[in-house]
Amino acid sequence: MSLLIMKNIPKSQSKSKVWVVENGQIRSRTDFLVTEEPLEIRLVSPAQTVAVTMRTPGADFDLVAGFLYSEGVIICQEDIQQMSYCVDSDIEAEQNYNIIKVELREELKPNLPSLERHFFTSSACGVCGKTSLESLKIKGCIPVNTNIKITSELILQLPTKLKEAQNIFTKTGGLHAAALFDIEGNLLKLREDVGRHNALDKLIGSAILSKEMPLNNCIVMVSGRSSFEILQKCIMAKIPLLCAVSAPSSLAVTLAQEFKVTLIGFLRENRFNIYTEAERII
Amino acid sequence: MSLLIMKNIPKSQSKSKVWVVENGQIRSRTDFLVTEEPLEIRLVSPAQTVAVTMRTPGADFDLVAGFLYSEGVIICQEDIQQMSYCVDSDIEAEQNYNIIKVELREELKPNLPSLERHFFTSSACGVCGKTSLESLKIKGCIPVNTNIKITSELILQLPTKLKEAQNIFTKTGGLHAAALFDIEGNLLKLREDVGRHNALDKLIGSAILSKEMPLNNCIVMVSGRSSFEILQKCIMAKIPLLCAVSAPSSLAVTLAQEFKVTLIGFLRENRFNIYTEAERII
Repeated sequence: MSLLIMKNIPKSQSKSKVWVVENGQIRSRTDFLVTEEPLEIRLVSPAQTVAVTMRTPGADFDLVAGFLYSEGVIICQEDIQQMSYCVDSDIEAEQNYNIIKVELREELKPNLPSLERHFFTSSACGVCGKTSLESLKIKGCIPVNTNIKITSELILQLPTKLKEAQNIFTKTGGLHAAALFDIEGNLLKLREDVGRHNALDKLIGSAILSKEMPLNNCIVMVSGRSSFEILQKCIMAKIPLLCAVSAPSSLAVTLAQEFKVTLIGFLRENRFNIYTEAERII
Repeated sequence: MSLLIMKNIPKSQSKSKVWVVENGQIRSRTDFLVTEEPLEIRLVSPAQTVAVTMRTPGADFDLVAGFLYSEGVIICQEDIQQMSYCVDSDIEAEQNYNIIKVELREELKPNLPSLERHFFTSSACGVCGKTSLESLKIKGCIPVNTNIKITSELILQLPTKLKEAQNIFTKTGGLHAAALFDIEGNLLKLREDVGRHNALDKLIGSAILSKEMPLNNCIVMVSGRSSFEILQKCIMAKIPLLCAVSAPSSLAVTLAQEFKVTLIGFLRENRFNIYTEAERII
């Protein structure tokens, strides 16, 4: 696989003038904003746009790999032959970093129409939590199989470690983070993005590109809530333990039960809730 | 317009057993989770699925109206002839509340392919913040025109008013909210959803169905951050003042500048930042 990397990639934060109103006073200062720009993911053959997503520039190749993996288009790094920013002569310079062209292994024939809808709907009239769950089984997802045991003390240390590593957030306050830890609680990777799903796609995508998959000996922590899509991505990557700072949704808990993911929510420095597979926590 | 409403609509929250780990102790209790279920929006003629989105059941017709409005498919309540849950005999009972069929006014011919991608991409090779902005102009968006002036004291009261009205959040901790206030600071409407965009779509959709558009004499407050999509929806509805509890993205600020929306972020009980059109705040 080759990655054609370019210089001058847009920054993940930008400056903005802001008026601060506090204690009845108004003052002007310069603040940092998290950058939000669209990214188009385009397959070379068959030539087709797979998705356009708003994202924070940075780790774009990770994002693309993670997205294609979550959608079931690729299963390993070798499935990607080449990734590059699109620099066709008819593109304006400022768009150069907002399109990534992906050349897949020739034998891969992604099922593109279903991608456009971003998840499965049955051919009959209808969608529901049950069909959403079935769609994961169709993609080949099976319950996570691991014997790991984690102490609650280790879990309680994760928020502080995440926060210390969140560089951009500290400046802009506007970013979601996803972090990968080993079962000793060491931070392996952290990715940030204006979108919750993108941060996790970047994290998993980075593991794919570095050939570190599957992640069945790892812990993932996300900065926000856990939803259907967050669980879906973890299940695809065989992650046995997902921690979130905030609440899970009903469908997230259903998925975690079905696929044997230990789901932790409301993780703060002194407490957390376990929703599923509690026996992995000692 | 007729709305075919059914009984037994699924609840927006559900119970779950949870283990709480706190101060070295573990105990079991029952918690409320926010419900997350897919919703399919389907046009009757031409028969086509417009979108499938994960949402919290409740105010589904509002969500559909707001979504179609934000996407430029409808511009007023009269554009919708009928909305109903899909109860075809070949659907399983549990899917009954996850599909809404919409009959548009006959003359309307929505541009469906562009909907699938959820926002505009130029016909040339490329997307960027600039083209995203152009797409709003193509949809007919113009700068918000209003002479309203709001005091900073009124702004500072909004977080408390929002919090008091957020019923489901109080129980589940897992919901985003969008609230509509008049320029005296009275709460007019509040909608909640597991998705930030959905909460705002529900709020604007409710105003459409009640024939209260445009909202150029109103203030909107959202519980999370403000992104491109949040601004896009406000600009479509001609909302002059958007307040968010957290940070805006770079593209949100660019859009607010261009379309003359007063954008406020980091709104807490004693402080806030003004990013654009500060002269409306006195």
